[in-house]
Amino acid sequence: MIIQENDKLILITNDDGLYAAGLKTLTDVMQEFGKVVVISATESRSAMSQALTVQQPLRVKLLEENEKKMIYACSGTPTDGVKLAVNQLLGRRPDLIVSGINHGSNASASVLYSGTMAAALEGCLYGITSVGFSLNSYSSTADFSVCEKYIRMVCKMVLSEPLPQGVCLNVNIPAIKASEVKGIRVARQASGWWQEEFEKRKDPMGKTYYWLTGCFVNREPESTDTDEWAMQNGYVSVVPVTTDMTAHNFISELKTKF
Amino acid sequence: MIIQENDKLILITNDDGLYAAGLKTLTDVMQEFGKVVVISATESRSAMSQALTVQQPLRVKLLEENEKKMIYACSGTPTDGVKLAVNQLLGRRPDLIVSGINHGSNASASVLYSGTMAAALEGCLYGITSVGFSLNSYSSTADFSVCEKYIRMVCKMVLSEPLPQGVCLNVNIPAIKASEVKGIRVARQASGWWQEEFEKRKDPMGKTYYWLTGCFVNREPESTDTDEWAMQNGYVSVVPVTTDMTAHNFISELKTKF
Repeated sequence: MIIQENDKLILITNDDGLYAAGLKTLTDVMQEFGKVVVISATESRSAMSQALTVQQPLRVKLLEENEKKMIYACSGTPTDGVKLAVNQLLGRRPDLIVSGINHGSNASASVLYSGTMAAALEGCLYGITSVGFSLNSYSSTADFSVCEKYIRMVCKMVLSEPLPQGVCLNVNIPAIKASEVKGIRVARQASGWWQEEFEKRKDPMGKTYYWLTGCFVNREPESTDTDEWAMQNGYVSVVPVTTDMTAHNFISELKTKF
Repeated sequence: MIIQENDKLILITNDDGLYAAGLKTLTDVMQEFGKVVVISATESRSAMSQALTVQQPLRVKLLEENEKKMIYACSGTPTDGVKLAVNQLLGRRPDLIVSGINHGSNASASVLYSGTMAAALEGCLYGITSVGFSLNSYSSTADFSVCEKYIRMVCKMVLSEPLPQGVCLNVNIPAIKASEVKGIRVARQASGWWQEEFEKRKDPMGKTYYWLTGCFVNREPESTDTDEWAMQNGYVSVVPVTTDMTAHNFISELKTKF
Protein backbone atom coordinates (compact mmCIF):
# COMPACT_ATOMS: atom_id res chain seq x y z
CA MET A 1 0.00 0.00 0.00
CA ILE A 2 1.49 3.33 -1.03
CA ILE A 3 0.41 6.33 1.01
CA GLN A 4 0.61 9.63 -0.88
CA GLU A 5 1.35 12.81 1.02
CA ASN A 6 -2.25 14.09 0.71
CA ASP A 7 -3.87 10.74 1.60
CA LYS A 8 -5.51 10.58 4.98
CA LEU A 9 -4.07 7.71 7.00
CA ILE A 10 -6.53 6.02 9.34
CA LEU A 11 -5.72 3.47 12.02
CA ILE A 12 -8.53 1.09 12.90
CA THR A 13 -8.76 -1.27 15.85
CA ASN A 14 -11.33 -2.93 18.09
CA ASP A 15 -11.56 -5.28 21.06
CA ASP A 16 -13.80 -7.95 19.53
CA GLY A 17 -11.06 -9.29 17.26
CA LEU A 18 -10.30 -9.31 13.55
CA TYR A 19 -13.29 -11.43 12.57
CA ALA A 20 -15.94 -9.28 14.27
CA ALA A 21 -18.75 -7.94 12.07
CA GLY A 22 -18.46 -4.48 13.61
CA LEU A 23 -14.82 -4.16 12.55
CA LYS A 24 -15.75 -5.06 8.97
CA THR A 25 -18.43 -2.36 8.79
CA LEU A 26 -16.07 0.25 10.25
CA THR A 27 -13.25 -0.74 7.87
CA ASP A 28 -15.56 -0.56 4.84
CA VAL A 29 -16.78 2.94 5.73
CA MET A 30 -13.34 4.30 6.63
CA GLN A 31 -11.93 3.45 3.19
CA GLU A 32 -14.10 6.30 1.88
CA PHE A 33 -11.90 8.68 3.91
CA GLY A 34 -8.39 7.44 3.12
CA LYS A 35 -5.89 4.62 3.36
CA VAL A 36 -6.55 2.33 6.30
CA VAL A 37 -4.41 0.17 8.54
CA VAL A 38 -6.29 -2.33 10.71
CA ILE A 39 -4.66 -3.88 13.76
CA SER A 40 -6.40 -6.23 16.14
CA ALA A 41 -6.13 -9.62 17.81
CA THR A 42 -7.40 -12.77 16.14
CA GLU A 43 -9.51 -13.41 19.24
CA SER A 44 -11.72 -11.22 21.40
CA ARG A 45 -10.04 -8.82 23.85
CA SER A 46 -13.28 -7.56 25.30
CA ALA A 47 -13.29 -5.74 28.68
CA MET A 48 -9.50 -5.33 28.60
CA SER A 49 -9.72 -1.65 29.55
CA GLN A 50 -6.41 0.13 28.92
CA ALA A 51 -4.36 -2.95 29.88
CA LEU A 52 -0.82 -3.27 28.54
CA THR A 53 1.15 -6.45 27.92
CA VAL A 54 4.29 -6.08 30.01
CA GLN A 55 5.01 -9.65 31.15
CA GLN A 56 5.25 -11.12 27.65
CA PRO A 57 6.54 -9.88 24.32
CA LEU A 58 4.19 -8.93 21.50
CA ARG A 59 3.87 -10.53 18.06
CA VAL A 60 2.55 -8.87 14.92
CA LYS A 61 1.71 -10.42 11.56
CA LEU A 62 0.71 -8.71 8.32
CA LEU A 63 -2.30 -10.72 7.13
CA GLU A 64 -3.49 -8.77 4.11
CA GLU A 65 -2.35 -5.85 1.98
CA ASN A 66 -3.84 -4.18 -1.05
CA GLU A 67 -3.86 -0.64 -2.48
CA LYS A 68 -6.42 0.60 0.08
CA LYS A 69 -5.75 -1.24 3.28
CA MET A 70 -3.37 -3.29 5.41
CA ILE A 71 -4.52 -5.71 8.09
CA TYR A 72 -2.27 -6.75 10.97
CA ALA A 73 -2.91 -9.38 13.63
CA CYS A 74 -1.43 -8.46 17.00
CA SER A 75 -1.05 -10.70 20.02
CA GLY A 76 -1.77 -8.03 22.63
CA THR A 77 -4.55 -5.81 23.94
CA PRO A 78 -6.24 -3.02 21.94
CA THR A 79 -3.95 -0.50 23.65
CA ASP A 80 -0.86 -2.56 22.75
CA GLY A 81 -2.08 -2.59 19.13
CA VAL A 82 -2.34 1.20 18.99
CA LYS A 83 1.11 1.58 20.54
CA LEU A 84 2.69 -0.90 18.13
CA ALA A 85 1.02 0.60 15.07
CA VAL A 86 1.88 4.21 15.93
CA ASN A 87 5.45 3.45 16.99
CA GLN A 88 6.53 0.59 14.72
CA LEU A 89 4.21 -0.09 11.81
CA LEU A 90 2.67 3.05 10.32
CA GLY A 91 5.78 4.94 9.31
CA ARG A 92 3.88 8.20 9.71
CA ARG A 93 1.47 9.66 12.25
CA PRO A 94 -2.16 8.69 11.48
CA ASP A 95 -4.71 11.45 10.89
CA LEU A 96 -7.35 9.57 12.83
CA ILE A 97 -7.73 6.50 15.04
CA VAL A 98 -11.14 4.80 15.07
CA SER A 99 -12.05 1.86 17.27
CA GLY A 100 -15.00 -0.53 17.03
CA ILE A 101 -17.70 -0.94 16.11
CA ASN A 102 -18.00 -2.57 19.51
CA HIS A 103 -20.52 -5.35 19.98
CA GLY A 104 -22.39 -3.85 22.94
CA SER A 105 -22.78 -0.47 24.60
CA ASN A 106 -19.85 1.48 26.00
CA ALA A 107 -22.05 4.14 27.57
CA SER A 108 -21.88 5.14 31.25
CA ALA A 109 -19.40 3.22 33.44
CA SER A 110 -18.65 0.74 30.63
CA VAL A 111 -16.21 3.33 29.25
CA LEU A 112 -13.90 2.38 32.14
CA TYR A 113 -13.76 -1.33 31.23
CA SER A 114 -13.90 -0.99 27.46
CA GLY A 115 -10.98 -2.07 25.29
CA THR A 116 -12.58 -0.17 22.41
CA MET A 117 -12.57 3.13 24.28
CA ALA A 118 -9.11 2.41 25.74
CA ALA A 119 -7.72 2.35 22.20
CA ALA A 120 -9.28 5.78 21.60
CA LEU A 121 -7.88 7.06 24.90
CA GLU A 122 -4.45 5.77 23.87
CA GLY A 123 -4.74 7.77 20.65
CA CYS A 124 -5.63 10.80 22.76
CA LEU A 125 -2.48 10.44 24.85
CA TYR A 126 -0.45 10.62 21.62
CA GLY A 127 -2.37 13.75 20.59
CA ILE A 128 -4.08 11.92 17.69
CA THR A 129 -7.79 12.54 17.07
CA SER A 130 -9.59 9.35 18.13
CA VAL A 131 -13.15 8.03 18.21
CA GLY A 132 -14.69 4.83 19.58
CA PHE A 133 -17.93 3.48 18.10
CA SER A 134 -20.28 0.98 19.76
CA LEU A 135 -23.62 -0.59 18.83
CA ASN A 136 -25.98 -1.34 21.71
CA SER A 137 -26.38 -5.04 20.85
CA TYR A 138 -24.54 -8.18 21.89
CA SER A 139 -26.37 -10.30 19.32
CA SER A 140 -24.15 -12.29 16.97
CA THR A 141 -26.55 -11.36 14.15
CA ALA A 142 -26.63 -7.62 15.00
CA ASP A 143 -27.08 -5.34 11.99
CA PHE A 144 -24.24 -2.80 11.98
CA SER A 145 -25.50 -0.93 8.91
CA VAL A 146 -27.41 1.50 11.16
CA CYS A 147 -23.98 2.80 12.25
CA GLU A 148 -22.67 3.75 8.80
CA LYS A 149 -24.34 7.16 8.47
CA TYR A 150 -23.17 8.26 11.93
CA ILE A 151 -19.62 7.02 11.43
CA ARG A 152 -19.49 9.18 8.29
CA MET A 153 -20.92 12.23 10.09
CA VAL A 154 -18.59 11.98 13.08
CA CYS A 155 -15.43 11.20 11.07
CA LYS A 156 -16.11 14.00 8.58
CA MET A 157 -16.41 16.41 11.49
CA VAL A 158 -13.27 15.32 13.38
CA LEU A 159 -11.15 15.15 10.21
CA SER A 160 -12.03 18.77 9.40
CA GLU A 161 -11.74 20.03 12.99
CA PRO A 162 -9.37 17.92 15.13
CA LEU A 163 -10.39 17.31 18.74
CA PRO A 164 -8.64 19.17 21.58
CA GLN A 165 -5.57 17.56 23.19
CA GLY A 166 -6.64 14.83 25.60
CA VAL A 167 -10.23 14.50 24.37
CA CYS A 168 -11.68 11.65 22.29
CA LEU A 169 -15.27 10.74 21.42
CA ASN A 170 -17.37 7.85 22.73
CA VAL A 171 -20.13 7.24 20.16
CA ASN A 172 -22.91 4.82 21.14
CA ILE A 173 -25.50 3.83 18.57
CA PRO A 174 -28.89 2.32 19.42
CA ALA A 175 -29.63 -1.08 17.84
CA ILE A 176 -32.79 0.03 16.06
CA LYS A 177 -33.76 0.49 12.41
CA ALA A 178 -31.86 3.30 10.66
CA SER A 179 -35.17 5.03 9.91
CA GLU A 180 -36.00 5.15 13.64
CA VAL A 181 -32.79 6.86 14.79
CA LYS A 182 -33.62 10.43 15.83
CA GLY A 183 -30.13 11.83 15.21
CA ILE A 184 -26.99 12.66 17.19
CA ARG A 185 -27.12 13.92 20.75
CA VAL A 186 -24.03 15.27 22.52
CA ALA A 187 -24.23 13.90 26.07
CA ARG A 188 -22.33 13.30 29.28
CA GLN A 189 -21.44 9.92 30.82
CA ALA A 190 -24.34 8.68 32.95
CA SER A 191 -23.54 7.80 36.55
CA GLY A 192 -24.00 4.03 36.75
CA TRP A 193 -22.41 0.75 37.70
CA TRP A 194 -22.52 -2.97 37.01
CA GLN A 195 -24.32 -4.97 39.67
CA GLU A 196 -22.46 -8.25 39.72
CA GLU A 197 -24.16 -11.57 40.10
CA PHE A 198 -21.38 -14.14 39.88
CA GLU A 199 -22.43 -17.57 38.75
CA LYS A 200 -20.82 -20.09 41.12
CA ARG A 201 -20.22 -23.54 39.62
CA LYS A 202 -18.35 -26.76 40.42
CA ASP A 203 -15.84 -28.17 37.95
CA PRO A 204 -15.67 -31.94 37.23
CA MET A 205 -13.14 -32.25 40.07
CA GLY A 206 -15.64 -30.72 42.50
CA LYS A 207 -13.79 -27.42 42.84
CA THR A 208 -15.58 -24.07 42.82
CA TYR A 209 -15.21 -21.50 40.07
CA TYR A 210 -17.02 -18.27 39.27
CA TRP A 211 -18.29 -16.71 36.05
CA LEU A 212 -18.55 -12.94 36.09
CA THR A 213 -22.03 -11.85 35.00
CA GLY A 214 -24.02 -8.77 35.96
CA CYS A 215 -26.47 -6.14 34.88
CA PHE A 216 -26.04 -2.41 34.40
CA VAL A 217 -27.68 -0.03 36.88
CA ASN A 218 -28.23 3.60 35.85
CA ARG A 219 -28.03 5.78 38.97
CA GLU A 220 -29.83 8.64 37.24
CA PRO A 221 -32.50 7.25 34.86
CA GLU A 222 -34.41 10.57 34.97
CA SER A 223 -31.52 12.71 33.66
CA THR A 224 -32.05 13.55 29.97
CA ASP A 225 -28.51 14.80 29.25
CA THR A 226 -26.74 11.43 29.61
CA ASP A 227 -25.46 8.90 27.07
CA GLU A 228 -27.74 6.23 28.53
CA TRP A 229 -30.83 8.39 28.12
CA ALA A 230 -29.88 9.33 24.55
CA MET A 231 -29.31 5.73 23.48
CA GLN A 232 -32.43 4.42 25.22
CA ASN A 233 -34.47 7.15 23.52
CA GLY A 234 -33.38 6.51 19.95
CA TYR A 235 -30.45 8.92 19.66
CA VAL A 236 -26.82 8.30 18.80
CA SER A 237 -24.96 9.57 21.88
CA VAL A 238 -21.63 11.36 21.48
CA VAL A 239 -19.71 11.90 24.72
CA PRO A 240 -16.40 13.81 24.75
CA VAL A 241 -14.11 11.70 26.95
CA THR A 242 -11.01 13.05 28.69
CA THR A 243 -7.75 11.39 29.72
CA ASP A 244 -7.72 13.70 32.76
CA MET A 245 -9.32 11.70 35.57
CA THR A 246 -8.92 14.45 38.20
CA ALA A 247 -12.09 15.22 40.17
CA HIS A 248 -11.42 18.96 39.76
CA ASN A 249 -14.54 20.03 41.66
CA PHE A 250 -13.35 18.19 44.80
CA ILE A 251 -9.82 19.66 44.93
CA SER A 252 -10.56 22.74 47.01
CA GLU A 253 -12.54 20.76 49.60
CA LEU A 254 -9.83 18.09 49.78
CA LYS A 255 -7.20 20.76 50.44
CA THR A 256 -8.99 21.69 53.68
CA LYS A 257 -8.62 18.14 55.01
CA PHE A 258 -4.82 17.89 55.19
CA MET B 1 -12.00 -14.23 61.65
CA ILE B 2 -15.02 -12.84 63.49
CA ILE B 3 -16.06 -9.32 62.53
CA GLN B 4 -17.95 -7.48 65.26
CA GLU B 5 -20.56 -4.91 64.32
CA ASN B 6 -18.36 -1.97 65.34
CA ASP B 7 -15.19 -3.33 63.67
CA LYS B 8 -14.08 -1.52 60.57
CA LEU B 9 -13.80 -3.95 57.66
CA ILE B 10 -11.04 -3.11 55.18
CA LEU B 11 -10.50 -4.75 51.80
CA ILE B 12 -6.91 -4.68 50.53
CA THR B 13 -5.67 -5.49 47.06
CA ASN B 14 -2.84 -4.60 44.68
CA ASP B 15 -1.60 -5.38 41.18
CA ASP B 16 1.90 -6.57 42.06
CA GLY B 17 0.68 -9.84 43.56
CA LEU B 18 0.43 -11.39 47.02
CA TYR B 19 4.18 -11.57 47.61
CA ALA B 20 4.92 -7.91 46.88
CA ALA B 21 6.65 -5.92 49.63
CA GLY B 22 4.26 -2.99 49.14
CA LEU B 23 1.23 -5.16 49.92
CA LYS B 24 2.85 -6.37 53.14
CA THR B 25 3.49 -2.81 54.37
CA LEU B 26 -0.08 -1.76 53.53
CA THR B 27 -1.56 -4.84 55.23
CA ASP B 28 0.51 -4.27 58.37
CA VAL B 29 -0.59 -0.63 58.68
CA MET B 30 -4.26 -1.31 57.91
CA GLN B 31 -4.59 -3.78 60.80
CA GLU B 32 -4.34 -0.73 63.08
CA PHE B 33 -7.70 0.40 61.64
CA GLY B 34 -9.77 -2.80 61.69
CA LYS B 35 -10.19 -6.32 60.39
CA VAL B 36 -8.62 -6.81 56.99
CA VAL B 37 -9.32 -9.04 54.01
CA VAL B 38 -6.57 -9.23 51.40
CA ILE B 39 -7.29 -10.45 47.88
CA SER B 40 -4.75 -10.54 45.08
CA ALA B 41 -3.18 -12.77 42.47
CA THR B 42 -0.17 -14.94 43.25
CA GLU B 43 1.61 -13.30 40.31
CA SER B 44 1.93 -9.71 39.12
CA ARG B 45 -1.06 -8.15 37.34
CA SER B 46 0.73 -4.89 36.64
CA ALA B 47 -0.65 -2.50 33.96
CA MET B 48 -3.94 -4.40 33.80
CA SER B 49 -5.96 -1.18 34.00
CA GLN B 50 -9.63 -1.90 34.82
CA ALA B 51 -9.61 -5.15 32.78
CA LEU B 52 -12.17 -7.83 33.63
CA THR B 53 -11.88 -11.57 33.10
CA VAL B 54 -14.85 -12.48 30.92
CA GLN B 55 -13.48 -15.27 28.71
CA GLN B 56 -12.49 -17.57 31.56
CA PRO B 57 -13.94 -18.36 34.97
CA LEU B 58 -12.31 -17.11 38.16
CA ARG B 59 -10.80 -19.15 40.97
CA VAL B 60 -10.38 -18.05 44.59
CA LYS B 61 -8.49 -19.73 47.41
CA LEU B 62 -8.36 -18.82 51.10
CA LEU B 63 -4.65 -18.97 51.93
CA GLU B 64 -4.51 -17.70 55.49
CA GLU B 65 -6.91 -16.75 58.26
CA ASN B 66 -6.37 -15.53 61.79
CA GLU B 67 -8.24 -13.23 64.20
CA LYS B 68 -7.13 -10.06 62.39
CA LYS B 69 -6.92 -10.90 58.71
CA MET B 70 -7.89 -13.20 55.87
CA ILE B 71 -5.81 -13.60 52.71
CA TYR B 72 -7.32 -14.83 49.45
CA ALA B 73 -5.53 -15.68 46.20
CA CYS B 74 -7.60 -14.84 43.13
CA SER B 75 -6.90 -15.87 39.55
CA GLY B 76 -8.11 -12.64 37.92
CA THR B 77 -7.25 -8.97 37.61
CA PRO B 78 -7.29 -6.46 40.50
CA THR B 79 -10.78 -5.35 39.39
CA ASP B 80 -12.01 -8.97 39.35
CA GLY B 81 -10.65 -9.36 42.87
CA VAL B 82 -12.59 -6.35 44.17
CA LYS B 83 -15.78 -7.59 42.47
CA LEU B 84 -15.40 -11.11 43.87
CA ALA B 85 -14.60 -9.90 47.38
CA VAL B 86 -17.47 -7.40 47.56
CA ASN B 87 -20.05 -9.71 45.97
CA GLN B 88 -19.05 -13.18 47.18
CA LEU B 89 -16.50 -13.23 49.98
CA LEU B 90 -16.90 -10.40 52.46
CA GLY B 91 -20.43 -11.04 53.69
CA ARG B 92 -20.78 -7.33 54.43
CA ARG B 93 -19.92 -4.08 52.70
CA PRO B 94 -16.34 -2.97 53.51
CA ASP B 95 -15.81 0.43 55.12
CA LEU B 96 -12.76 1.08 52.98
CA ILE B 97 -10.89 -0.38 50.01
CA VAL B 98 -7.15 0.27 49.81
CA SER B 99 -4.92 -0.78 46.94
CA GLY B 100 -1.15 -0.98 46.74
CA ILE B 101 1.37 0.00 47.76
CA ASN B 102 2.22 -0.07 44.06
CA HIS B 103 5.84 -0.60 43.06
CA GLY B 104 6.21 2.50 40.87
CA SER B 105 4.44 5.80 40.33
CA ASN B 106 0.79 6.00 39.29
CA ALA B 107 0.89 9.75 38.79
CA SER B 108 -0.16 11.51 35.57
CA ALA B 109 -1.30 9.26 32.68
CA SER B 110 -0.21 6.12 34.54
CA VAL B 111 -3.54 6.27 36.39
CA LEU B 112 -5.17 5.08 33.14
CA TYR B 113 -3.04 1.90 32.90
CA SER B 114 -2.76 1.13 36.59
CA GLY B 115 -4.33 -2.01 38.04
CA THR B 116 -3.83 -0.52 41.50
CA MET B 117 -5.90 2.55 40.71
CA ALA B 118 -8.44 0.46 38.75
CA ALA B 119 -9.19 -1.44 41.97
CA ALA B 120 -9.84 1.88 43.72
CA LEU B 121 -12.05 3.05 40.82
CA GLU B 122 -14.00 -0.21 41.08
CA GLY B 123 -14.60 0.51 44.76
CA CYS B 124 -15.81 3.98 43.74
CA LEU B 125 -18.37 2.50 41.33
CA TYR B 126 -19.81 0.51 44.26
CA GLY B 127 -19.94 3.69 46.34
CA ILE B 128 -17.22 2.43 48.73
CA THR B 129 -14.52 4.86 49.89
CA SER B 130 -11.32 3.77 48.11
CA VAL B 131 -7.68 4.83 47.97
CA GLY B 132 -4.71 3.69 45.87
CA PHE B 133 -1.16 4.08 47.21
CA SER B 134 2.02 4.03 45.12
CA LEU B 135 5.72 4.47 45.86
CA ASN B 136 7.80 6.11 43.14
CA SER B 137 10.33 3.27 42.90
CA TYR B 138 10.53 0.12 40.79
CA SER B 139 13.50 -1.20 42.80
CA SER B 140 13.06 -4.68 44.23
CA THR B 141 14.74 -3.43 47.41
CA ALA B 142 12.60 -0.28 47.72
CA ASP B 143 11.94 0.83 51.30
CA PHE B 144 8.18 1.14 51.77
CA SER B 145 8.42 2.37 55.37
CA VAL B 146 8.34 5.99 54.13
CA CYS B 147 4.70 5.34 53.16
CA GLU B 148 3.43 4.28 56.59
CA LYS B 149 2.88 7.75 58.06
CA TYR B 150 0.94 8.94 54.99
CA ILE B 151 -1.20 5.79 54.76
CA ARG B 152 -2.23 6.44 58.36
CA MET B 153 -3.00 10.12 57.70
CA VAL B 154 -5.04 9.47 54.55
CA CYS B 155 -6.96 6.47 55.93
CA LYS B 156 -7.77 8.26 59.18
CA MET B 157 -9.21 11.12 57.14
CA VAL B 158 -11.32 9.04 54.74
CA LEU B 159 -12.63 6.76 57.49
CA SER B 160 -13.92 9.79 59.41
CA GLU B 161 -15.23 11.64 56.34
CA PRO B 162 -16.15 9.30 53.46
CA LEU B 163 -15.31 10.48 49.96
CA PRO B 164 -18.08 11.74 47.63
CA GLN B 165 -19.80 9.20 45.31
CA GLY B 166 -17.58 8.45 42.32
CA VAL B 167 -14.36 9.92 43.74
CA CYS B 168 -11.34 7.95 45.03
CA LEU B 169 -7.82 9.06 45.93
CA ASN B 170 -4.57 8.47 44.05
CA VAL B 171 -1.73 8.82 46.57
CA ASN B 172 1.82 8.87 45.18
CA ILE B 173 4.73 8.85 47.60
CA PRO B 174 8.27 9.90 46.66
CA ALA B 175 10.97 7.27 47.22
CA ILE B 176 13.08 9.40 49.57
CA LYS B 177 13.97 9.25 53.26
CA ALA B 178 10.98 9.79 55.56
CA SER B 179 12.75 12.78 57.11
CA GLU B 180 13.01 14.46 53.69
CA VAL B 181 9.28 14.26 52.79
CA LYS B 182 7.81 17.76 52.94
CA GLY B 183 4.22 16.63 53.60
CA ILE B 184 1.01 16.03 51.66
CA ARG B 185 0.04 18.13 48.64
CA VAL B 186 -3.41 17.89 47.06
CA ALA B 187 -2.81 18.01 43.31
CA ARG B 188 -4.32 17.40 39.89
CA GLN B 189 -3.24 14.76 37.35
CA ALA B 190 -0.37 16.12 35.22
CA SER B 191 -0.85 16.05 31.47
CA GLY B 192 1.66 13.51 30.21
CA TRP B 193 2.17 10.37 28.19
CA TRP B 194 4.45 7.38 27.75
CA GLN B 195 6.81 7.66 24.82
CA GLU B 196 7.17 4.12 23.60
CA GLU B 197 10.41 2.65 22.42
CA PHE B 198 9.67 -0.96 21.60
CA GLU B 199 12.61 -3.30 21.77
CA LYS B 200 12.53 -5.44 18.63
CA ARG B 201 14.17 -8.87 18.96
CA LYS B 202 14.44 -12.15 17.09
CA ASP B 203 13.45 -15.42 18.77
CA PRO B 204 15.56 -18.60 18.35
CA MET B 205 13.39 -19.44 15.29
CA GLY B 206 14.31 -16.14 13.67
CA LYS B 207 10.88 -14.57 14.15
CA THR B 208 10.40 -10.99 15.32
CA TYR B 209 8.89 -10.05 18.66
CA TYR B 210 8.58 -6.79 20.56
CA TRP B 211 9.02 -5.81 24.19
CA LEU B 212 7.07 -2.79 25.30
CA THR B 213 9.37 -0.26 26.97
CA GLY B 214 9.11 3.50 27.17
CA CYS B 215 9.69 6.60 29.22
CA PHE B 216 7.25 9.06 30.75
CA VAL B 217 6.99 12.55 29.25
CA ASN B 218 5.43 15.33 31.36
CA ARG B 219 3.71 17.82 29.02
CA GLU B 220 3.70 20.52 31.68
CA PRO B 221 6.89 20.29 33.78
CA GLU B 222 6.52 23.95 34.86
CA SER B 223 3.07 23.52 36.45
CA THR B 224 3.36 23.39 40.24
CA ASP B 225 -0.17 22.10 40.96
CA THR B 226 0.30 18.61 39.45
CA ASP B 227 0.96 15.20 40.99
CA GLU B 228 4.22 14.91 39.04
CA TRP B 229 5.51 18.21 40.37
CA ALA B 230 4.54 17.32 43.94
CA MET B 231 6.26 13.94 43.84
CA GLN B 232 9.38 15.27 42.10
CA ASN B 233 9.63 18.01 44.72
CA GLY B 234 9.47 15.85 47.82
CA TYR B 235 5.73 15.91 48.52
CA VAL B 236 3.22 13.09 48.81
CA SER B 237 0.69 13.89 46.09
CA VAL B 238 -3.02 13.22 46.68
CA VAL B 239 -5.20 13.48 43.57
CA PRO B 240 -8.98 13.05 43.78
CA VAL B 241 -9.84 10.77 40.85
CA THR B 242 -13.30 10.52 39.30
CA THR B 243 -15.09 7.69 37.51
CA ASP B 244 -16.74 10.33 35.29
CA MET B 245 -14.56 10.57 32.19
CA THR B 246 -16.72 13.20 30.46
CA ALA B 247 -14.77 16.20 29.12
CA HIS B 248 -17.43 18.54 30.55
CA ASN B 249 -15.71 21.71 29.36
CA PHE B 250 -15.92 20.56 25.72
CA ILE B 251 -19.64 19.66 25.68
CA SER B 252 -21.02 23.07 24.69
CA GLU B 253 -18.50 23.46 21.83
CA LEU B 254 -19.20 19.92 20.61
CA LYS B 255 -22.93 20.63 20.51
CA THR B 256 -22.33 23.33 17.88
CA LYS B 257 -20.70 20.79 15.54
CA PHE B 258 -23.68 18.45 14.93
